[in-house]
Amino acid sequence: MKKVLLASTALILTAGVAAADGHAGIELSGSANAGVKYNSEAADQFTIHNEVNVVISMSGASDSGLSFGAFIDIDEDSVDDAEVFLSGLFGTVTVGGVDPATDGFGIADVGFDGIGVDDPAEQYKNATAGADVVYSYSASGLTFTASLETNGENSYAVALEYAAGAFSAGVGYVDDADDLGGNSTITVAGGFSQGPISVNAIYSDWDGGTLDSGQGYGVDVSFDAGVATVTAVYSNADGVSAGAGLGSSYGVGFSTDLGGGLKLAGGVGAIQPDQAAGGTAATDTETVADLGVSMSF
Amino acid sequence: MKKVLLASTALILTAGVAAADGHAGIELSGSANAGVKYNSEAADQFTIHNEVNVVISMSGASDSGLSFGAFIDIDEDSVDDAEVFLSGLFGTVTVGGVDPATDGFGIADVGFDGIGVDDPAEQYKNATAGADVVYSYSASGLTFTASLETNGENSYAVALEYAAGAFSAGVGYVDDADDLGGNSTITVAGGFSQGPISVNAIYSDWDGGTLDSGQGYGVDVSFDAGVATVTAVYSNADGVSAGAGLGSSYGVGFSTDLGGGLKLAGGVGAIQPDQAAGGTAATDTETVADLGVSMSF
Amino acid sequence: MKKVLLASTALILTAGVAAADGHAGIELSGSANAGVKYNSEAADQFTIHNEVNVVISMSGASDSGLSFGAFIDIDEDSVDDAEVFLSGLFGTVTVGGVDPATDGFGIADVGFDGIGVDDPAEQYKNATAGADVVYSYSASGLTFTASLETNGENSYAVALEYAAGAFSAGVGYVDDADDLGGNSTITVAGGFSQGPISVNAIYSDWDGGTLDSGQGYGVDVSFDAGVATVTAVYSNADGVSAGAGLGSSYGVGFSTDLGGGLKLAGGVGAIQPDQAAGGTAATDTETVADLGVSMSF
Repeated sequence: MKKVLLASTALILTAGVAAADGHAGIELSGSANAGVKYNSEAADQFTIHNEVNVVISMSGASDSGLSFGAFIDIDEDSVDDAEVFLSGLFGTVTVGGVDPATDGFGIADVGFDGIGVDDPAEQYKNATAGADVVYSYSASGLTFTASLETNGENSYAVALEYAAGAFSAGVGYVDDADDLGGNSTITVAGGFSQGPISVNAIYSDWDGGTLDSGQGYGVDVSFDAGVATVTAVYSNADGVSAGAGLGSSYGVGFSTDLGGGLKLAGGVGAIQPDQAAGGTAATDTETVADLGVSMSF
Repeated sequence: MKKVLLASTALILTAGVAAADGHAGIELSGSANAGVKYNSEAADQFTIHNEVNVVISMSGASDSGLSFGAFIDIDEDSVDDAEVFLSGLFGTVTVGGVDPATDGFGIADVGFDGIGVDDPAEQYKNATAGADVVYSYSASGLTFTASLETNGENSYAVALEYAAGAFSAGVGYVDDADDLGGNSTITVAGGFSQGPISVNAIYSDWDGGTLDSGQGYGVDVSFDAGVATVTAVYSNADGVSAGAGLGSSYGVGFSTDLGGGLKLAGGVGAIQPDQAAGGTAATDTETVADLGVSMSF
Repeated sequence: MKKVLLASTALILTAGVAAADGHAGIELSGSANAGVKYNSEAADQFTIHNEVNVVISMSGASDSGLSFGAFIDIDEDSVDDAEVFLSGLFGTVTVGGVDPATDGFGIADVGFDGIGVDDPAEQYKNATAGADVVYSYSASGLTFTASLETNGENSYAVALEYAAGAFSAGVGYVDDADDLGGNSTITVAGGFSQGPISVNAIYSDWDGGTLDSGQGYGVDVSFDAGVATVTAVYSNADGVSAGAGLGSSYGVGFSTDLGGGLKLAGGVGAIQPDQAAGGTAATDTETVADLGVSMSF
């Protein structure tokens, strides 16, 4: 349910800004949403949904100009996603509750909370890998990211992303080395924006060894009509499920900025329901929709 | 253990103030208490008790003047009670960890932490209902509140409260529509203050269907003697227990404002112990007391 | 893994400063670390480790000059260690997630996160006692601390610490009165610093009744070489384990202040592995090391 390509660099840039004046500091930021979700196949077709999230960002700069900091995440029922980073001319190293280097790839979802229309295309991008450490380096529009999973597991991932003017493109590879039969994914992604129109696409090819494999692809198209941005998404997965649905899913949604950090958004689509990992069952298409507000503080 | 009538609107008013200048903002507030509690029937008659609570309040205002925000609550061992609200001329809608519309009714407890003397009178006010969404609208001293419980449950509650000068009064109705045999409560409450004296009373009539029913009532009287406020409480429940005690409970307590957010308070009373819901057992009266400090930050 | 003698008073002093201007206030502070840990005997010899911690400190002052406040601790996966304190000419009383009065004694560990070289010497200092309430009073370099554990348990501890110029010394006694056969510890500790050199030592004698007993002792020596502080530690425990290792453990480490709250530190040592409480098994020495950064915000 990632909304934008290159999303993995956003948190790091924020921390860099906060530390630029050489003072250690602690800042709070928050987000929330609330609205109604609909699923044609659920026992309770309409449900009320809300989320609240607070991030405590701590940062500083050493005498020699190294940036450093930590994040901790408080949501409506727990504390999680603690990360620690160190940043300098060599790039940025982040340790803790991080994601594989390939996790930043994705296309848009639609709705105030997301209806999951992008999930089929994105389910293979991390293979079965996690991560303990991420390294990232950016220069001249190029961003190189590498991740390792070491504590009790053995996996790695690398990603190369390029952004220049209206274009962005990326390629990533992840390998869960714990599976001797092989368990890796290659992902390519690209984006383009021109005036009010932007387009993003992703393609993942998962090689799960002798028995399992899957391919996922998807595209989003957004049009900024001034009063609202309208987004249409199509995604497809073929082969063995990695948890999300197989076959075709599609949806359309809008988002309106009401100012001050408040947005009204909604989406509707036809999706294939999640399967158990390894599943290939034929499933009934679900009609899903949501409508609500999102807030940033 | 609610201390004042109309308590349910306090949080919303605070958020309104914070958002009045049009800036999104995050504010922290906190409370704590510490002291000694006594129960004549417990294996450990004296226990040391403390609580710490922090609320992160996030708020903003849209271009058109809508107020919005979210709360999250951190206490000594967990994160909970996340709420999201949207407020305008239409009133205020709050989603998340909210209480039924009838939850705001109540009388005072006594002590720094509360000895539970008000519980018998208040145990029926919400029937067996919860809530996902609360709507509230205030004008000319009238406050109308309605709540719905929708996710996997079906219940609703409405309350109308009026405050003018020295008088306040309210009436509420809650219905847990999941119980086909009927499961509803009507509650009326009223308050009066004149000079140093204030009085609050509540009466609840619970109709639990063909077999169960209960009535609870209670009154608190407070006298502000300058150096301290002295409060006396009597409450009574009759019929089938909804978790609290049956029969008569009464207590008296004091609270002294030491300035800067610090209060010293204590209470002593004779209460009927909690029962399992549905219980009607005869029980021994417990003598309970507490003495300690409460803090607000 | 306590790093300094008298550490138990640090939190209280901070709160006193914040309250000195008579305003109630809420302040955030944080710490984090990240690095690599090594253990020669573990299945995964190298592991990546990180911690993030945020403390919310709330404080105020009453009209008559009493200081009061509360702390709550958020770490990478939970909320804990909530404390409430009240402070005046009589001293400071702290209630909540506190430690026995004898917990402040200890010697240094080495490394960015600690390799546990100090654990054998410190394992007996609290016997098997906990605490609900701590009282502390300081005057003329003397600090008297007393703690009680009351809720479902019965234990107490007292400590007297003295610091003057280059010297510090302390003695503590803890008794877990729930054990009829006797369960108490006497601890003595002392420290000395001259120019770039500082030395701390601890000795604990645990009397666990007719069957169990243990003695632990240890010493740390630090040398501030300007660019880095080098610390060497030796500790030893004899008798029955209280959870940590028996026999000799030793290690050496360094810490370099990089400015702005960032430190680089590492340590290496030979330690005896933890045992189950009551254990006396012969164990293989483990070679352990760590290297990483610590941050304060």
